[in-house]
Amino acid sequence: MSLTQPTVAILQGDPAGIGPELLVKLLGASGVLDQANVLVIGDPAIFRRGEQAAGIRIDSMRHIGDSRDIDFAAGPLLHLDLHFEGIEDTALGEVSAIGGRSSIGALQMSLELARSAVVDAVVFMPFNKASMHMGGNEFTDEMGFAKRFFGLTGEVSEFNVAHGMWNGRVTSHVAMKDVPALLTRQRIEESIALADRTLRLAGYARPRIVVAAYNPHAGDNGLMGREELDVIAPAVQAMQARHVEVTGPLPADTLWLKVRSGEYDAVVTMYHDQGQIAIKLLGFDQGVSVLAGLPIPITTPAHGTAFDIAGQNKANLAPTRNAFDMAVDMAAQRLQGQS
Amino acid sequence: MSLTQPTVAILQGDPAGIGPELLVKLLGASGVLDQANVLVIGDPAIFRRGEQAAGIRIDSMRHIGDSRDIDFAAGPLLHLDLHFEGIEDTALGEVSAIGGRSSIGALQMSLELARSAVVDAVVFMPFNKASMHMGGNEFTDEMGFAKRFFGLTGEVSEFNVAHGMWNGRVTSHVAMKDVPALLTRQRIEESIALADRTLRLAGYARPRIVVAAYNPHAGDNGLMGREELDVIAPAVQAMQARHVEVTGPLPADTLWLKVRSGEYDAVVTMYHDQGQIAIKLLGFDQGVSVLAGLPIPITTPAHGTAFDIAGQNKANLAPTRNAFDMAVDMAAQRLQGQS
Repeated sequence: MSLTQPTVAILQGDPAGIGPELLVKLLGASGVLDQANVLVIGDPAIFRRGEQAAGIRIDSMRHIGDSRDIDFAAGPLLHLDLHFEGIEDTALGEVSAIGGRSSIGALQMSLELARSAVVDAVVFMPFNKASMHMGGNEFTDEMGFAKRFFGLTGEVSEFNVAHGMWNGRVTSHVAMKDVPALLTRQRIEESIALADRTLRLAGYARPRIVVAAYNPHAGDNGLMGREELDVIAPAVQAMQARHVEVTGPLPADTLWLKVRSGEYDAVVTMYHDQGQIAIKLLGFDQGVSVLAGLPIPITTPAHGTAFDIAGQNKANLAPTRNAFDMAVDMAAQRLQGQS
Repeated sequence: MSLTQPTVAILQGDPAGIGPELLVKLLGASGVLDQANVLVIGDPAIFRRGEQAAGIRIDSMRHIGDSRDIDFAAGPLLHLDLHFEGIEDTALGEVSAIGGRSSIGALQMSLELARSAVVDAVVFMPFNKASMHMGGNEFTDEMGFAKRFFGLTGEVSEFNVAHGMWNGRVTSHVAMKDVPALLTRQRIEESIALADRTLRLAGYARPRIVVAAYNPHAGDNGLMGREELDVIAPAVQAMQARHVEVTGPLPADTLWLKVRSGEYDAVVTMYHDQGQIAIKLLGFDQGVSVLAGLPIPITTPAHGTAFDIAGQNKANLAPTRNAFDMAVDMAAQRLQGQS
């Protein structure tokens, strides 16, 4: 599918969750190693636990202990061993500082290899926020960590993707009363631009983007709020002038019916729940989250660590496979763009 | 189903829309006239147009010209004739002042008959807001009209019902920036009480009510907004102390998945789109709107006048039938409660 075979780093996620077994199942699935070179990063003891849970052995994988030894000439699958003292004692289904430290350590290694252009995309299995907090992560999520790592100040955003419907948002984890002040024309324009760029990377030649209104009935021409007239519509018009295929603002309730029927590829929403209510009802538990605006694509299955079924080989591979395929596609597009 | 047969007034809605043909199809459907006495209120010329569009003649209907002649001894179906000069000239699919005046006139008559206890419930076919505005209605909707008619000052609210899922809201057609100040403990308690009362009237012995949070992730214990801690949770606790089966506040995005899976009967949302995004995705176009908090139940199919298919006998009867059945149930419950 691409002229250049990308290298994708895959992180096992929290060792107490379903990540390790999903990772093994992914590597055992047909076609995965035809699309990309895969570098698994993590503790080999946890990888073995994943093999046992999944009932699969990945024989073709070669272990290396140093990132300078990364070389796919002999095969498309490597495991970069990081060792975390005592990690094999972590119990399935329990948060732990060592689980969190291993997640952060693997994430940091993957970003360093991305910065030095050794890997082209990162897929991570579910992290556990409580474990990461216990493990000493000062950020609320992996997005904050990655943004700081790359020293970014521009618009960085998580996109949620369910069955081909993309959702990015202008504001996210903030109090609702603070949203109006954050809805600036610049921020909305950047969000639209980021959606356009991200979907192009994901293979959309000309992404069809729709922007949600903020107020009920899109403000009804100023009767119920002026954000549509004062900032959202001007931002949409400015991006149209820059030849982005974008429309709006449309009332947020009827808008999602149009997205579901296939009229648009991506929705830019003004606040967290405006997108999350819809995308969760539309099947996001089977979907993918994409961290956009970073130097490389980072994707992850939309579900969590599912401690209640960890180790039981019950977890559904589909979201992980979607996350991997999306990372490969986006990395390949990017490499083609550079070549 | 009830000890007392209620009398239900049915209004034909805007004459240019699908209302008149739906009304005729409803009267022709099996079982309708077994459940209630039906008083159609409107211009007989429009009723005949509805018969022609539907291809049905309702032979059992008797016309009366004066509300003092309402008497169901000779049969369960009467038509109270109101005459609007020139209404037969209204074109299908076009807004008109006369269409709006006929809607308002019929609504007012039905409310007067409700006040004098002649009718126990009202079902109206879709009105057209633009026609009503041209016809001189100073209110934005039928709810405002009815509230003024009955001189009400308490909590009055529209509930939207889709496939057994009920949604009422604390705030509705207001600017989003004004919502936080409107989220008072009293208003939230009244909305919960209204949901409980309304669903009991609709036949739920002990309605299971869930209250949506306002902020993302329900504010995450005050990190992203304090409305949950300061007003919503106290309101929920106060209503629990009054033995209402209510829980919350729950994050608005995951909440709807639980409602869809049947865990709750009704959701009280904090603002318009929080409910409308979900309930539209859940099939509200086939649903029913209930005007709650009035002296009598008023219901209407959730769709609009559908000018594009008016007169073509294409409109789906299901939402109208649901609206009628719900009005009958609620009126019967109310009569039983009084007897």
